[in-house]
Amino acid sequence: MPDRKGNLMSVRKDVKVLDATIRDGGLCNNFEFTDEFVTALYKANIKCGIDYMEFGYKASKNMFKKSDFGKWKFCDEEDIRSIVGENISDMKISVMADVGRCDFKEDFLPKSESVIDMVRVACYIHQIPAAIEMIEHLHGLGYETCCNIMAISQANLNQINEALDMISKSSVDVIYLVDSYGSLFPENAGDLAAKYLEFAEANGKKVGFHGHNNQNLAFANTIETMSLGVSYLDGTALAMGRGAGNCAMELLLGFLKNPKYSIFPLLEFIEKYMIPLKNSGVTWGYDLQYMMTGQLNRHPREAMQFTADKRGDYSEFYKQLLENF
Amino acid sequence: MPDRKGNLMSVRKDVKVLDATIRDGGLCNNFEFTDEFVTALYKANIKCGIDYMEFGYKASKNMFKKSDFGKWKFCDEEDIRSIVGENISDMKISVMADVGRCDFKEDFLPKSESVIDMVRVACYIHQIPAAIEMIEHLHGLGYETCCNIMAISQANLNQINEALDMISKSSVDVIYLVDSYGSLFPENAGDLAAKYLEFAEANGKKVGFHGHNNQNLAFANTIETMSLGVSYLDGTALAMGRGAGNCAMELLLGFLKNPKYSIFPLLEFIEKYMIPLKNSGVTWGYDLQYMMTGQLNRHPREAMQFTADKRGDYSEFYKQLLENF
Repeated sequence: MPDRKGNLMSVRKDVKVLDATIRDGGLCNNFEFTDEFVTALYKANIKCGIDYMEFGYKASKNMFKKSDFGKWKFCDEEDIRSIVGENISDMKISVMADVGRCDFKEDFLPKSESVIDMVRVACYIHQIPAAIEMIEHLHGLGYETCCNIMAISQANLNQINEALDMISKSSVDVIYLVDSYGSLFPENAGDLAAKYLEFAEANGKKVGFHGHNNQNLAFANTIETMSLGVSYLDGTALAMGRGAGNCAMELLLGFLKNPKYSIFPLLEFIEKYMIPLKNSGVTWGYDLQYMMTGQLNRHPREAMQFTADKRGDYSEFYKQLLENF
Repeated sequence: MPDRKGNLMSVRKDVKVLDATIRDGGLCNNFEFTDEFVTALYKANIKCGIDYMEFGYKASKNMFKKSDFGKWKFCDEEDIRSIVGENISDMKISVMADVGRCDFKEDFLPKSESVIDMVRVACYIHQIPAAIEMIEHLHGLGYETCCNIMAISQANLNQINEALDMISKSSVDVIYLVDSYGSLFPENAGDLAAKYLEFAEANGKKVGFHGHNNQNLAFANTIETMSLGVSYLDGTALAMGRGAGNCAMELLLGFLKNPKYSIFPLLEFIEKYMIPLKNSGVTWGYDLQYMMTGQLNRHPREAMQFTADKRGDYSEFYKQLLENF
């Protein structure tokens, strides 16, 4: 087993907490958050000591019609500024851009003209060369960059070694281990994290973790990989995120020992904004259908459809999953 | 870090799975399960390959009025037999008895006259001598015995060492690590498990784990302690149990690699019995108020009251918890 860095009482000053509520949560409500909601979350995150707040995606307007989505699918500079002004806080601002679904050469200003601090490039493992092209461009513009390699539980070890070798030699700052299907256990998440750290540390990079809660393990996997040296940790308020949701920020802030983090402003935000949002019918979170896709290591799309159809025939659904293997 | 026994692909033949749905779940509905429900669970558990099914408590009829509770608080021999007959299955039957709240000298038949196979003696750490008296009596009657030391997250290391030394030298078969408050993390649950195993293995005993889901870690702690050598694992259908509930049996069966275990009969049972039970208004499961008591390492009673009062002022509740520290 790899060694732990610190113990349960340690302050790990290298840790950075990223709130992905608007970005991953936006997948649950078509990014249709009100400005009041986003502003309240921005203020709460600052009070909580959160290090980065992700506002959404920079999606291609050639591929996606602006009128079909809330504005946080596109994260126009003026929309972010309408919430944060010049962002005079200590919290940094990030956006995500998917390989193949953004116009990165047109849609990013030079960092000196933008309130965005960090761009997280999301890709599948076979898209690493395209991700590196984006990262070099964005790094050249002056941004901090991450590479979020998704669906890692379906990649094989050779692919992972090659991808980590390539990406760790690029200009990227942080390499993210992303358990898109919520199928990792702390034991193999930890083994993967150790591998990521080996490549990253040899090249002066950091490693991040982004979990999904299909097997009720998003928080467990986050703190396990952190204990082994992962330092960029994603969470969302009330675990809002696609399907089974993410690592709950309230669990993460309750765990971290650095006194810079406070849970109370988040609890106020959850009570005032997240619970009403959930009660309004926006659905996310751990449920049996997502557990099944997590256990079977597959994309949650069928479970999302099961949820959208308001089905309750769980055992029939399980049989269908096995038939469509 | 302690060594792991086996890996994620191993079959650990020493593992025994115990279904505690009626016993810990009974704390949510006053043990008022219908015979149809208990019979269906019994049959499903057998089909699933579950090793032990716990039917409830053997509570003192001098302390508790029979008419105030469902029958599974008392587990009379004839009530169990009305479900299982002679229990000709391979699944064993257990009951729990609390130190100081049972009449163990009167209420247990000799094992040769009972369908009960195992008695789990639950105690707080200061009650170890009383637990040992019970265990020796029950062992003398011919039962398998466990000692479930509750609320271990509030015991200090000296107490734990002394308790483990005493109990591991008794006639007990299994010593249970019980995270009553749901406040352990995989890291310290694992450290405690390693300590339990050290004493237990030196004396030919097994170790079990019983988790609570206050911090969404019941399953994670179960598989972490298992990976270090714990072999008796508790779960409940749909995680039914006091407060935040337990380790979900469906997560555990989805994880275990031994082909003797099947998840499908459990999914059918959950769909037909557990979901309607939950929809009928019986409440359990992860929620913010239980997260808070878990983070603060305290009894969930205030969170249970918050739930019973149908309160939604989470941030006010958190302040109250801090004031009553």
